[in-house]
Amino acid sequence: MTAKSTIEQQLDHRTIRAFTKQPVAPAIIEQLVSVARHTATSNFQQAFSVISVTDPAKKEQIAAIAKQPYVAANGHLFVFVADQHRDQQIGAEMGKTENHLGGTDRFLQAWSDTTLAVQNTEVAAESLGLGTVILGSILNDTQQLIDILALPQLTFPVLGLAIGWPDQKPQLKPRLPERFVHFENTYQLPAPLRPQLAEYDAVVHQYYDLRDTNRRVDTFTNQVKARLALQPEKRAEMLTVLHRQGFLLE
Amino acid sequence: MTAKSTIEQQLDHRTIRAFTKQPVAPAIIEQLVSVARHTATSNFQQAFSVISVTDPAKKEQIAAIAKQPYVAANGHLFVFVADQHRDQQIGAEMGKTENHLGGTDRFLQAWSDTTLAVQNTEVAAESLGLGTVILGSILNDTQQLIDILALPQLTFPVLGLAIGWPDQKPQLKPRLPERFVHFENTYQLPAPLRPQLAEYDAVVHQYYDLRDTNRRVDTFTNQVKARLALQPEKRAEMLTVLHRQGFLLE
Repeated sequence: MTAKSTIEQQLDHRTIRAFTKQPVAPAIIEQLVSVARHTATSNFQQAFSVISVTDPAKKEQIAAIAKQPYVAANGHLFVFVADQHRDQQIGAEMGKTENHLGGTDRFLQAWSDTTLAVQNTEVAAESLGLGTVILGSILNDTQQLIDILALPQLTFPVLGLAIGWPDQKPQLKPRLPERFVHFENTYQLPAPLRPQLAEYDAVVHQYYDLRDTNRRVDTFTNQVKARLALQPEKRAEMLTVLHRQGFLLE
Repeated sequence: MTAKSTIEQQLDHRTIRAFTKQPVAPAIIEQLVSVARHTATSNFQQAFSVISVTDPAKKEQIAAIAKQPYVAANGHLFVFVADQHRDQQIGAEMGKTENHLGGTDRFLQAWSDTTLAVQNTEVAAESLGLGTVILGSILNDTQQLIDILALPQLTFPVLGLAIGWPDQKPQLKPRLPERFVHFENTYQLPAPLRPQLAEYDAVVHQYYDLRDTNRRVDTFTNQVKARLALQPEKRAEMLTVLHRQGFLLE
């Protein structure tokens, strides 16, 4: 437990990818899930579930999907799931099978509920001195992940969250300055944009340079450019898999 | 500022819809935006923007969309926006127009980045003793909201967040018990579900009964059932509007 205020802790957020062998106590896991459950929710839907992946074989499979070996290593692995299946089940048991649970509106409400819960859990974990990494990489192959976790119709994996006792102390990653992110009354991005990002590009370049001489040393805008055309094959199938799970059909 | 721990505060979260006339100081707004900017982000994309709606006429329009008069009242109104436009702009200025920024994968990454930032901001605000309400209701008419905020292609509104000094003290809303939300290794919802929810139904019924005798007194499962078939006309158009903004086309 640190003496930092909540905001000091949030401003000092850094992703932790290496955890010590000390497990996260079950009482802490329960407390974190309780925080997740108490997150704000759209229309009181509580449209998410969370799966603790404790089976080492499944962790290995998920690490392979994520292409991140550390996912299978120390640390507690949560997978947060957008869930309209629960409501469908309640409706079916009450004789009501017609619904819009798979519609775009309801799907995005579930995605929001789920993601809000992820962030709330992350802040809670960090307040206890735990390290966290939010894993979008588990979506590299959504169909396989759905199969591993036996996710039924009207559910979909949103984000993973691995939590453990930190075994590294990375640098703070520099964020876009406020004027590129925060506007008043209307959307107003500075234009032309790239020249105005030159200073931030230099800051990001220096961050990578200091972080690890073995890895890319890049600017922010070069990274943006390099990512534009990237779309791994399985990632390109996401809409198909969403349709298969019953989502985004209306 | 309270003496509560971060987790105590999170477990005590309640939505505040009435704020006093005392404005939120600009320094606090800047601090909250800084917290939003330091939220975890997928692949360092930082794929969100936030718009402070300070124009009273615009606040009125948004309150009308949300059908919540309090949105136009006291309190600072943020609208958080999923943003792949910034990257498109950077790419265009670097001579690269081809991209997958509107694809389902990138869209959902942006939606996640945005929602994570909303929750981080909410926790930060509450840690200062501020009250908050997350507004999914601003999506009741997304096209109109897009027009009001002049949101360009490859952006989309995700959630509103109103923040102010609390002028009410609502009851804590009871959440689904852990066993309906948290599973191990595979998705395993208890079945049949509804009988097992009887106790929670009673708790929710009592909550509404105590809260306000003028409003519905309902169980959780009855609410779920009643919502299943609900889909206001404009909400049903969300996928069309997403396509119009350039999203979910692949």
